[in-house]
Amino acid sequence: MSLEIMGQKAKAAARTAARLSQTEINLALSAMADALEENSEEILAENQKDILAAQENGIREIMIDRLLLTEERIHQIAQGVREVAALKSPVGEIRDMRRMENGLQIGKMRVPIGVIAIIYESRPNVTADCAALCLKTGNAVILRGGKEAIHSNIAITKTIQKALERTSVTPNAVQLVTDTSRETAQQLMKLNRYVDVLIPRGGAGLIRTVVENATVSVIETGTGNCHIYADDGCDFSMATEIVYNAKTQRPSVCNAAESLLIHKNIAEKLLPLIWAALKEKNVEFRGCDRTAKIIPCKAAKEEDYYTEFLDYIISVKIVDGLEEAINHINKYGTGHSEAIITNSYENAQRFLREVDSAAVYVNASTRFTDGNAFGLGAEIGISTQKLHARGPMGLEALTSDKYIVLGNGQTR
Amino acid sequence: MSLEIMGQKAKAAARTAARLSQTEINLALSAMADALEENSEEILAENQKDILAAQENGIREIMIDRLLLTEERIHQIAQGVREVAALKSPVGEIRDMRRMENGLQIGKMRVPIGVIAIIYESRPNVTADCAALCLKTGNAVILRGGKEAIHSNIAITKTIQKALERTSVTPNAVQLVTDTSRETAQQLMKLNRYVDVLIPRGGAGLIRTVVENATVSVIETGTGNCHIYADDGCDFSMATEIVYNAKTQRPSVCNAAESLLIHKNIAEKLLPLIWAALKEKNVEFRGCDRTAKIIPCKAAKEEDYYTEFLDYIISVKIVDGLEEAINHINKYGTGHSEAIITNSYENAQRFLREVDSAAVYVNASTRFTDGNAFGLGAEIGISTQKLHARGPMGLEALTSDKYIVLGNGQTR
Repeated sequence: MSLEIMGQKAKAAARTAARLSQTEINLALSAMADALEENSEEILAENQKDILAAQENGIREIMIDRLLLTEERIHQIAQGVREVAALKSPVGEIRDMRRMENGLQIGKMRVPIGVIAIIYESRPNVTADCAALCLKTGNAVILRGGKEAIHSNIAITKTIQKALERTSVTPNAVQLVTDTSRETAQQLMKLNRYVDVLIPRGGAGLIRTVVENATVSVIETGTGNCHIYADDGCDFSMATEIVYNAKTQRPSVCNAAESLLIHKNIAEKLLPLIWAALKEKNVEFRGCDRTAKIIPCKAAKEEDYYTEFLDYIISVKIVDGLEEAINHINKYGTGHSEAIITNSYENAQRFLREVDSAAVYVNASTRFTDGNAFGLGAEIGISTQKLHARGPMGLEALTSDKYIVLGNGQTR
Repeated sequence: MSLEIMGQKAKAAARTAARLSQTEINLALSAMADALEENSEEILAENQKDILAAQENGIREIMIDRLLLTEERIHQIAQGVREVAALKSPVGEIRDMRRMENGLQIGKMRVPIGVIAIIYESRPNVTADCAALCLKTGNAVILRGGKEAIHSNIAITKTIQKALERTSVTPNAVQLVTDTSRETAQQLMKLNRYVDVLIPRGGAGLIRTVVENATVSVIETGTGNCHIYADDGCDFSMATEIVYNAKTQRPSVCNAAESLLIHKNIAEKLLPLIWAALKEKNVEFRGCDRTAKIIPCKAAKEEDYYTEFLDYIISVKIVDGLEEAINHINKYGTGHSEAIITNSYENAQRFLREVDSAAVYVNASTRFTDGNAFGLGAEIGISTQKLHARGPMGLEALTSDKYIVLGNGQTR
């Protein structure tokens, strides 16, 4: 099917989805969840085709694990859909209603965005997650997953569409682009007539391609070169525990710490403690000259400070104080999540105000930056841009506002 | 100066602007306003160069009037800057602060966006207006006005920069691109390293060029093909007054009505009333076949329904009911402002929910869609996109959020 026709169908589906009640939407989500579990055999069979192809193509084991579906994982996906159904939808909420001097009542109503396109990479669970979040908020979605998960994605989408047939939601509200060529992806990025927003989910390369080529509105999601700054006078055991947690608990995710900044006055005492803790996990240290005088480490190059390692590697820099730490973060960071470990009220305040990132922490691990930990219930991605949504994006990020104006004949 | 260097300076200026107190910012705005008035002689002399060039190039009288500055207009510009200074800034506001189960306190802090670029057309007052709104919210701005206003824009920007030298705000917070070539505009649209958002202000051609070429985030501002739908059972005199006001009070603006939809049951009685009223202003009617049987009019072509006339012309269509009216608006409209004139509670509710526009009205003129009438105090444009900001954009649209997270050693 051509993207033009998919776009038309999505637009029409969005109009009808916007009129549905929450009860109708939740029944549809529930039907989706049930169908995924009932149809797990077929989905697993299709998933095996992707796995075999990946093995033949010599894809890395860790990537194959991302692709793999199991009965248990399908159950988790279905549970995820049910959890989305249980959330309170922000759509229809009216707020800031005011009566103006001329008697006009003016306020804002929260409405669906319309058609949301999502371009993503390997994991097939994204297909069901995104479909559920978009439907919950009355949007239609056009999904374009990676080539390596195409059989799984088709099976999941078909299952969802079949389930929707028996509900008030039109199956056209969830469509998958089955042509995984680059050309089609490029077309999708320029489908301004139908697509209201495009959310890329994946590695830095995908995000860059989308930002450079899309003419539709994009929400950039995030690479996370996250920093922890240990300030003069901080609690050493707290600092050690937080760095240990943020670096090693799950190094492959975007909210893991990649870089440690440490105040010169405490470096000599604190660095060896952190080094000893992280050595348990064989973390590689890449440090500045001053760091190298205190702990064994490789010499950090300029580019190391720009790098999101997503691995058991950490860059270290000893700084003269808060000012240098903030400047370093704003220069080398990606605007994702940064933490200060401090006991100084003033430095905490300055760090919160002046670090230009989606999430700024005092005395806690950067690992908390996600929709669940932030109480959003679910998440469609973590925005590292400043427009529309910043940080973990929940249901609200999938909505827009319109002004509503109630009069009794006012003219100007 | 190269755009690269302007971008660097703007970025640095944004960092320092974000640290300023509201008192410091308001003093700077006040100094700007005073300087514009004190320096009016020089600004008027430079403006005369633009006016002469425009006359030599045979520019239309109405456009020359847009370019023209007078002592009184400069006073108004200065007053506008003072009014912005008097507004309450949303920056620094902390909201939704919650204590999670693990003891983390998580909330949102409103922060400046950073560097805002604005590409605009002829009117030189935009230069000072935008500078004031961006500064008020702690942002730096890169202005790129039209070639025809270049002398005026340089004079205004120099005056502002000179005034800022004596304040806490760095003059680099307000910069003007003096090279008005297309190439430089294109470069500005791709200056992702420094520009956080680009707002085009101008005609449909400019907006389209920006949307198609920009790689930085854009907020589309609006062409307004605004509709009024007169529903069965509406008050005829109210309908007539509102259509008269929305079409003729100022036809050249984006919130003026361009199209009238009218329920078939009332068309025969109401249309002649509206026709008679609008004929006072020599409004040209372009109607559907059914319209032509009731009032004298030209035959409306398909493209007329898509057109923002910005003139004393109105397209008319008789519809079978609300459903057709809503579908027509969502198909032909530009998502700006639409009104229903009705006495039906249910139809009013459906119109508000289902019409997909930035502002939807019941029983009032579309002419109210602007920052002042909506109580925003000032306006940097009217967004017709759904992301980040929709409808009139005040100070809040020039800010972003960051999550702030306060802990006492939490790890995951």
